[in-house]
Amino acid sequence: MISFTCDYTQGAHPLILEQLAKTNLIQEPGYGEDSFCRSAREKIREAVGCPRADVFFLVGGTQTNSTVIDSMLRGYEGVVAVSSGHIAVHESGAVEFSGHKVITLPAFAGKMRAGDLKAYLKAFHADASCEHMVYPGMAYISFPTEYGTIYSKQELTDIHSVCKEYGIPLFIDGARLGYGLASDAADLTLKELAGLCDVFYIGGTKVGALCGEAVVFPNGNAPAHFFTTVKQHGALLAKGRLLGIQFDVLFTDDLYMKISRNAIEKALQLKSLFAKAGYTFYIDSPTNQQFPVLGKAELEYLKGKVAFEIWEPLPDGRFVTRFATSWATTQEQIEELSGLLLKV
Amino acid sequence: MISFTCDYTQGAHPLILEQLAKTNLIQEPGYGEDSFCRSAREKIREAVGCPRADVFFLVGGTQTNSTVIDSMLRGYEGVVAVSSGHIAVHESGAVEFSGHKVITLPAFAGKMRAGDLKAYLKAFHADASCEHMVYPGMAYISFPTEYGTIYSKQELTDIHSVCKEYGIPLFIDGARLGYGLASDAADLTLKELAGLCDVFYIGGTKVGALCGEAVVFPNGNAPAHFFTTVKQHGALLAKGRLLGIQFDVLFTDDLYMKISRNAIEKALQLKSLFAKAGYTFYIDSPTNQQFPVLGKAELEYLKGKVAFEIWEPLPDGRFVTRFATSWATTQEQIEELSGLLLKV
Amino acid sequence: MISFTCDYTQGAHPLILEQLAKTNLIQEPGYGEDSFCRSAREKIREAVGCPRADVFFLVGGTQTNSTVIDSMLRGYEGVVAVSSGHIAVHESGAVEFSGHKVITLPAFAGKMRAGDLKAYLKAFHADASCEHMVYPGMAYISFPTEYGTIYSKQELTDIHSVCKEYGIPLFIDGARLGYGLASDAADLTLKELAGLCDVFYIGGTKVGALCGEAVVFPNGNAPAHFFTTVKQHGALLAKGRLLGIQFDVLFTDDLYMKISRNAIEKALQLKSLFAKAGYTFYIDSPTNQQFPVLGKAELEYLKGKVAFEIWEPLPDGRFVTRFATSWATTQEQIEELSGLLLKV
Amino acid sequence: MISFTCDYTQGAHPLILEQLAKTNLIQEPGYGEDSFCRSAREKIREAVGCPRADVFFLVGGTQTNSTVIDSMLRGYEGVVAVSSGHIAVHESGAVEFSGHKVITLPAFAGKMRAGDLKAYLKAFHADASCEHMVYPGMAYISFPTEYGTIYSKQELTDIHSVCKEYGIPLFIDGARLGYGLASDAADLTLKELAGLCDVFYIGGTKVGALCGEAVVFPNGNAPAHFFTTVKQHGALLAKGRLLGIQFDVLFTDDLYMKISRNAIEKALQLKSLFAKAGYTFYIDSPTNQQFPVLGKAELEYLKGKVAFEIWEPLPDGRFVTRFATSWATTQEQIEELSGLLLKV
Repeated sequence: MISFTCDYTQGAHPLILEQLAKTNLIQEPGYGEDSFCRSAREKIREAVGCPRADVFFLVGGTQTNSTVIDSMLRGYEGVVAVSSGHIAVHESGAVEFSGHKVITLPAFAGKMRAGDLKAYLKAFHADASCEHMVYPGMAYISFPTEYGTIYSKQELTDIHSVCKEYGIPLFIDGARLGYGLASDAADLTLKELAGLCDVFYIGGTKVGALCGEAVVFPNGNAPAHFFTTVKQHGALLAKGRLLGIQFDVLFTDDLYMKISRNAIEKALQLKSLFAKAGYTFYIDSPTNQQFPVLGKAELEYLKGKVAFEIWEPLPDGRFVTRFATSWATTQEQIEELSGLLLKV
Repeated sequence: MISFTCDYTQGAHPLILEQLAKTNLIQEPGYGEDSFCRSAREKIREAVGCPRADVFFLVGGTQTNSTVIDSMLRGYEGVVAVSSGHIAVHESGAVEFSGHKVITLPAFAGKMRAGDLKAYLKAFHADASCEHMVYPGMAYISFPTEYGTIYSKQELTDIHSVCKEYGIPLFIDGARLGYGLASDAADLTLKELAGLCDVFYIGGTKVGALCGEAVVFPNGNAPAHFFTTVKQHGALLAKGRLLGIQFDVLFTDDLYMKISRNAIEKALQLKSLFAKAGYTFYIDSPTNQQFPVLGKAELEYLKGKVAFEIWEPLPDGRFVTRFATSWATTQEQIEELSGLLLKV
Repeated sequence: MISFTCDYTQGAHPLILEQLAKTNLIQEPGYGEDSFCRSAREKIREAVGCPRADVFFLVGGTQTNSTVIDSMLRGYEGVVAVSSGHIAVHESGAVEFSGHKVITLPAFAGKMRAGDLKAYLKAFHADASCEHMVYPGMAYISFPTEYGTIYSKQELTDIHSVCKEYGIPLFIDGARLGYGLASDAADLTLKELAGLCDVFYIGGTKVGALCGEAVVFPNGNAPAHFFTTVKQHGALLAKGRLLGIQFDVLFTDDLYMKISRNAIEKALQLKSLFAKAGYTFYIDSPTNQQFPVLGKAELEYLKGKVAFEIWEPLPDGRFVTRFATSWATTQEQIEELSGLLLKV
Repeated sequence: MISFTCDYTQGAHPLILEQLAKTNLIQEPGYGEDSFCRSAREKIREAVGCPRADVFFLVGGTQTNSTVIDSMLRGYEGVVAVSSGHIAVHESGAVEFSGHKVITLPAFAGKMRAGDLKAYLKAFHADASCEHMVYPGMAYISFPTEYGTIYSKQELTDIHSVCKEYGIPLFIDGARLGYGLASDAADLTLKELAGLCDVFYIGGTKVGALCGEAVVFPNGNAPAHFFTTVKQHGALLAKGRLLGIQFDVLFTDDLYMKISRNAIEKALQLKSLFAKAGYTFYIDSPTNQQFPVLGKAELEYLKGKVAFEIWEPLPDGRFVTRFATSWATTQEQIEELSGLLLKV
């Protein structure tokens, strides 16, 4: 049965497996000191246009979020995110586990509004009792968001301006970064994004790798002893080569963006299939996650034929569903889905 | 240059890479719910002789230690280890990061003595001020230890008895479990070891895998919602298949033990080379880590010719070094080393 | 200048100071093992109608909340509170510091609704991805709330029922417990309240003591080694007698309730003064905190003449203010205020 | 029965109780913003000779240690102390609860040796694997120590020099500071001590107050938002006046040092009584804690007649005991003890 449940149902891009096999018996030091990691770091520095960037390879998204956030906050600070942000909902409290509050703002199509952030920060510092509260020490957004939406260059610029005005770093969770930048709706490049935040990560797990996220501090601004913080958080891979090799391949010949574009093409086809069949969408997503709304009957009909996620029930009895494409989605899979959709 | 610096200088056993390639495009759910993890769990249950065992796959050792320990302790409890235990020294304070003290006992050849543990626990509970101290909530040992030594069946039985007497679980860090069990000096099997503790893990990273540690709760005694604790600790791999596939291969046709035995054979040859050349050893290790003592001249001589680790300086000006073999060490590497050793 | 800014502007009830002086040189053991603490515990057990209750004396409110909550939650659990709850706003992230998320529900006049709690718990456990989220491990409410409102016996019963249905404890923050129970609007007694929760505390700091909160586990259900958790949280007072003596006095001859009633009487007079002068209230509070709404002119006029708190600005340019009475508020203070209020 | 079990068996110095009573109904703001705290801060700044010092009042010792330490360390750092240091033994893991390791050095008569600290720091930074370990981020010593001993001016100077060389702050736990400085063996003043560390606290709980510790950052070097960190740690007293009044009295007319000298005088008499009766001491303490060694018979004989602490059993069957005097110890108590001692 074909599956659109998420963008991590399959292994890795074949070129990665090839390179893992080819380099398998070369002896290299551990913990990211190997030549593959060095090469991957160089390629990433070039791709993001930041020759001084600090680049670290971690294993997974939740781990990366909690490690980066904890490393950049002081004990009395929390991180500001929208209420639908991944760290606020689906990370089992990993940020709180490290002692920090996730301060939430309302989400609009999964996004934070610069105006809301500014209003919050202004009110916080104007509040006579703010010393009894958690200080907002950084802002967190995801690109694309948990609802597949993306920030425009102007929106990012505005959020980053607010952060600079209040002296807090902006962190972009790029678990699906490629799928955001490859979207037709994106009006900014990886280089531009790198200039509009203080730290971000390039998601590998969901974009062609077996695992791995590349954390980038664009201005060489990694916190002191970040390596040790990574280890302390259980996020340091002994065989760092596994991450280095994968990112080296992904950042050779623009592979990361090429395979990201495959996911977008397939997502747009999928979106169009649902639209033609008369379905509406919970949200208008321009990236690899699509959220068609299914009635109970259509949902039951589809359930045994294709795998997807039931996102949330709607008050009217229908269901928001999620269909995700990925670097690996094939034309055949789209066509198979096409044959399965009931008209509504 | 050949390297004996550690047992994670190379990739994975070729059968693992083969299986990763073969299964690469099969669509499977994430987070350990895939068929490979299910299969690997079954094989491990059989190998450890515990049909009811709970088995979880985590990514790395430090992460596994801190996750297991935090999940089994209450907030007011700490974990008892020897002073040379990995959690006490080389994990960047990951256990303390989760709020727990590592209570240390003296190490004898890297090992904890049952008598010391008992004396400590007895004195603790007899101390009128124990309510002002950290309660010992579990015992941690590594098998083999950080010095390559292993516990005999009797020693393990004695430690476990003390733990049972005081009602605390015994946790065995098996980052190099295969190399311990495959040693000629081992007088117990994997099944027996599983019966002499409350939780342990089977190390993959150092024994043939790219990454991965299999946590086993032999009696189905995983703490409630251990999955969520794993996620909270940043230790849950999205593409759990990467771990499932690797352990499935390692526990097929006894591969795990077979490749462990290779490391032992090569280690004994290496040990014999050093001994014949007149070197002494810091400790008499029967496993894959060997600790020859080198004078300054021999150390300088060898340094550019083979990679190894300088473990610690001795008061007499000589150096304890570490040479580690692994599943991947070849006869050629041993022979190359043989040609390099100066007689002393 | 008279002050109504809060209910902790003055020292302690004179009978407490008298008793501190009288017992000052008696030698007693520390850490709550003294005879005064023993006596106070007995009197509280009687007052709450729970002969088996565990009673502990801590120093302050934030400390008590974070210690109790951390002691009753497992690592993967959080505490459910309303968004205006003290732990969610004004405790500098003390709960998150101990690793737990504060999960927020909407507040209605500062109160949690049983229906909302039930809906949340039901939806949580029905959510297929709940294992990736923070488990709701206890419910927290304050009595009276941060807005001076109180729960009816039925409301408390309903919330407690939901908690029991889902197997989580209910914790009542009673920093101002006396002021809630002494209110004319209260339809339940201290004994009844003790039967409708799993742990609560009787606030001393705001109700006649220099400091001190008495934590009550009504059914002898204190978590194992709670004493040690208290110490670990820095909440154990060496001279426990300071707390024992105070609570012993407060629970002799019903002093706690008598002085609570003084605060209520004065609050009702104050409320009536504002109402007669034409002011409205942000919320209809039946306890010692009153929230009159002042226009900019009235606020400026009053500011130099009496101390009070500006709670929050309203969109229409007016201000919510807070005037608090206490066990120590005198008729003279009320009369002085009366002469100061401008008619609107 | 008279008690020498510890130095917190009695209430407060009578002048403190008097002042509490006299100021009782004056209305003041909370959280340390009151006029008594302001006055006390000024007097302390003068007494320590640091006009720019930041001074904060916390409630108890364990709380103060963990709050100060956590506020001055980064997440990847630990605190270096001797193995008998209070934070390493009798604080229920409060430091670890905040995520930091207590790194221990050997104790000599309860004291840290500058040479040991330097050797440790040097070896740490020379260790190739130090990035995998906990960084030593501050040094902690107590004055006097848990064994009643004190550092000479030279010893403190040496330790502080090492700290400065390695760029880490030195923290002095002064829970019994007065008893150390008032000792005949002390060769330094409060002002000199303040110049030989980066943060210290002046213990009130054990030296005449009901509770309270005054944290001093001599160079105005309190960490940013220390107030909020104090609140987050549950260490902020709502009625800060209770602490302000007490320290204001203690630092008026040199009361703190005067009452400290009483404890020393009585301790020296007590020491002399034991010596004359033929007892030896576990350690030669010049401060208010004395550690006579009692045989089983003498211990049994004394037990029902006077209260004291059994510190630890000796291998030869005898017992180290602790007899503590305090600000409140009277000549009568010493004489009563005198009549009770058996000759040995």
